[in-house]
Amino acid sequence: MAQQERAVRTRQAILAAAAQVFDEVGYEAATVSEILTRSGVTKGALYFHFASKEQLAQGVLQENAQVVPRVPAQRLKLQEAVDRGMLLAYQMGVDPLLRGSVRLALERSGNDSLDRKIPFEAWTRESELLLEQARLAGELQPHVDTEELAGVFVGAFAGVQLMSQALTDRQDLCERIAVLYRVLMSGVAVPSALVQLDVTAGRGARVQALIDQGRQEPADPHGQRPFLVGRG
Amino acid sequence: MAQQERAVRTRQAILAAAAQVFDEVGYEAATVSEILTRSGVTKGALYFHFASKEQLAQGVLQENAQVVPRVPAQRLKLQEAVDRGMLLAYQMGVDPLLRGSVRLALERSGNDSLDRKIPFEAWTRESELLLEQARLAGELQPHVDTEELAGVFVGAFAGVQLMSQALTDRQDLCERIAVLYRVLMSGVAVPSALVQLDVTAGRGARVQALIDQGRQEPADPHGQRPFLVGRG
Repeated sequence: MAQQERAVRTRQAILAAAAQVFDEVGYEAATVSEILTRSGVTKGALYFHFASKEQLAQGVLQENAQVVPRVPAQRLKLQEAVDRGMLLAYQMGVDPLLRGSVRLALERSGNDSLDRKIPFEAWTRESELLLEQARLAGELQPHVDTEELAGVFVGAFAGVQLMSQALTDRQDLCERIAVLYRVLMSGVAVPSALVQLDVTAGRGARVQALIDQGRQEPADPHGQRPFLVGRG
Repeated sequence: MAQQERAVRTRQAILAAAAQVFDEVGYEAATVSEILTRSGVTKGALYFHFASKEQLAQGVLQENAQVVPRVPAQRLKLQEAVDRGMLLAYQMGVDPLLRGSVRLALERSGNDSLDRKIPFEAWTRESELLLEQARLAGELQPHVDTEELAGVFVGAFAGVQLMSQALTDRQDLCERIAVLYRVLMSGVAVPSALVQLDVTAGRGARVQALIDQGRQEPADPHGQRPFLVGRG
């Protein structure tokens, strides 16, 4: 129905505006009126979908429940681990909804400290699973504790992206994450894995292209590829 | 003069309370009235010293202008680099003023994005200087870019402490920073330096003790050491 479509589009417009504002100034400083202005919808339309700032934040978070993207399988499990971070960094550069989600997840300063535990714990569990597979595949040096290492990967990523945002509004995020991952991998991967790893700044964009190719209809050689920021 | 001392003590009490509140809920959510309640001073006394929330934040930041502590010289420059981070982590566990400063430095979400550039840039420059000394001393592997590495150290530290705060209210900060530094060092230091490095969770407390010993009067063998959280 046309009306349903409009409602969905309106909701999306509101969430996009909310994500932008949350990303720019954080949850506490964000105001519903600023979000309303950015969204271009009417006050009635906004309040129909979202009764409060908190509901707007929940909406943004739910749109990106699976923040860390799935990546194509690789021969090296460590390459998949690298790819997830590099792809996330790349997507944060182009997807304001994702940026808003990440900032909300990292920065919720409400009284309920559970707010920030949950994303950190979820990201760490996912990282640990992948690093365990890498360990079983013999890609990690023997002494490496994958649980500890997962914590390092997640925490370090969060901080480096925070620094990139402060210094260059995330213009250099892919480079900084690549540098981070090169140093981390140098510390834990076996040489035969290191030599095969692609941990360069353009990796995220290349992974996105792989995902897009995997999804595409037979290509129109005269047309442009549709640009999809995919997460699944 | 007694009145001057009282004024100084009052100002310190206000800043201590402000730092606590800023650390707990961040700048935006903090209120002057909450700070007033925590400080135990009168409204008049508070407004005599600080006219606004912003001035309170400036006051906290200025109290800790030199956030990264000086450490005793070590034979290994990389040990000094490790010690600065481990000591900072240790001190954050015991000094609420420092915690408040760090959160303000990392999280200022005001319109002026310069707010967060300055601490990141300062910390990175300091790290880079120390890492250059380590490089000149032959402690780093040849390919290491000390400017990039300094950025990794600072960004990763910021994120790991953010994660520690969210998960355990910084109870495990020293352990997490030790794990981070062990992985980073493994990636960039030469083996002969690695084998000498002390990168264990208790290092921060030991460095603090070294600093305290350096300051102490001849010890009273029957008394307790005064506990000083020093930064110089």
